[in-house]
Amino acid sequence: MSPVAIVACVCLAVTLTRISPSEAIFPTPELQNVFLGRCKDYEITRYLTILPRVKSDCRALWTNFFKAFSFKAPCNLDLGSYKDFFQRAQQTLPKNKVMFWSGVYDEAHDFADDGRKYITLEDTLPGYMLNSLVWCGQRDKPGFNQKVCPDFKDCPVQARESFWGTASSSYAHSAEGDVTYMVDGSNPKVPAYRPDSFFGKYELPNLTNKVTKVKVIVLHQLGQKIIERCGAGSLLDLEMVVKAKKFGFDCVENPKSVLFLLCADNPNARECQLAKRYYRIA
Amino acid sequence: MSPVAIVACVCLAVTLTRISPSEAIFPTPELQNVFLGRCKDYEITRYLTILPRVKSDCRALWTNFFKAFSFKAPCNLDLGSYKDFFQRAQQTLPKNKVMFWSGVYDEAHDFADDGRKYITLEDTLPGYMLNSLVWCGQRDKPGFNQKVCPDFKDCPVQARESFWGTASSSYAHSAEGDVTYMVDGSNPKVPAYRPDSFFGKYELPNLTNKVTKVKVIVLHQLGQKIIERCGAGSLLDLEMVVKAKKFGFDCVENPKSVLFLLCADNPNARECQLAKRYYRIA
Repeated sequence: MSPVAIVACVCLAVTLTRISPSEAIFPTPELQNVFLGRCKDYEITRYLTILPRVKSDCRALWTNFFKAFSFKAPCNLDLGSYKDFFQRAQQTLPKNKVMFWSGVYDEAHDFADDGRKYITLEDTLPGYMLNSLVWCGQRDKPGFNQKVCPDFKDCPVQARESFWGTASSSYAHSAEGDVTYMVDGSNPKVPAYRPDSFFGKYELPNLTNKVTKVKVIVLHQLGQKIIERCGAGSLLDLEMVVKAKKFGFDCVENPKSVLFLLCADNPNARECQLAKRYYRIA
Repeated sequence: MSPVAIVACVCLAVTLTRISPSEAIFPTPELQNVFLGRCKDYEITRYLTILPRVKSDCRALWTNFFKAFSFKAPCNLDLGSYKDFFQRAQQTLPKNKVMFWSGVYDEAHDFADDGRKYITLEDTLPGYMLNSLVWCGQRDKPGFNQKVCPDFKDCPVQARESFWGTASSSYAHSAEGDVTYMVDGSNPKVPAYRPDSFFGKYELPNLTNKVTKVKVIVLHQLGQKIIERCGAGSLLDLEMVVKAKKFGFDCVENPKSVLFLLCADNPNARECQLAKRYYRIA
């Protein structure tokens, strides 16, 4: 095994869109304290009216989480490593409120509004606790590396996706009713729907027959060329996959409630011009 | 002293607009654990690129916080009770980003965007740790009441505002450059600017000569009657007070970036009609 592989990072932060790889290699300091601190805050004060509590206590959750990667070489994980942890940490999810997203972290979370409109994985206890944290195991005491977790790209896929892949699978497995999926329809580099995205690999395949419909929201960034549309390109592929699974399907492009959120950040975009009538009334 | 006064709550949660008085009387369970959990999470992971760290460690902060109200009858506090705590917990605030708000908790925080656009008191360490928590002291061990903190209205003003009044004063005292103040211009019951609001009592009087300008954002709720306008009514009073203090002053009503946020929640409001041109282009 090469030295590079030995120190390779095993975990993929959900907010990688915000963290450049050069920043992502430093493990979060005081991992256990942050884990337990977030866990207690969540248990007592967060999402109280939105998501039911998890029965396991925070110490038991930490034990199960730590067991999954500690005292192992950082890449020596597979997709089942965190299984026990997610069995303990999984919450019941409210019907019709589950949302998935790909490539639109900020927009999806602004739209979901901390669980008030939609629930995302990052609103659930395991997602909340580990969001944006970086950690990796090592064989020697204390069982995890406190100094460096080099680029996760050096790990095999199953190791690097061990945590968030299982998180996504477990989250999707609990969804009921209509689910929502927000994608980026204006990225020239990446199709809106990719079978090898977390949604394609872990979420869509784990939806159960308790799910009735997949509702796709295609986001078109303001002032940018529209690359993908409902009923064409990769979104047609997605439609066929969803329908083959006997779920209902619908698709909308920049619905007003999403468009206005984009406009709040970019009020002078051409798409955000208000009707003159408004000025007459006001 | 009447029995009612003895059990009266001493603390005013910042999010009272969301919590009805009948809910607010139950103290937060595991107050110390939640305080320490939020503190550690904040110290290591929250607002890292936005706000500098506080030098005191979490245990010292808890000790100072607890000392302020513990082993006292719940109303036996004055405005200086939490002074030591706020001296230890105060952060340096970035210039031109400090925002105050009255009566528009949700809108102000959506607009501030967790410190990315503006900083609110609730983004600072003390605000983050205590936001929406409820606590009160008692003379006997363990020094605080774990079962009930009855209606804070039964305490004298200085006791009930002891924590958040000092929090607001301390926060305002640290502001530099242009500060922003968001108010509700469509509430028929409460003027947009009230001298007896937290802003009027604790924030405006504590701005120092490091502040250059007060920028007021008047929010007009969609579909509701416009009650207050810049340059008139209570906003004219505010303008005179601000100018008498030799600060610059400006005032805007529903700027587009705020209007679009309101529209995201209420996309069919008449104020949210988009120009037809948009549809031609898209």
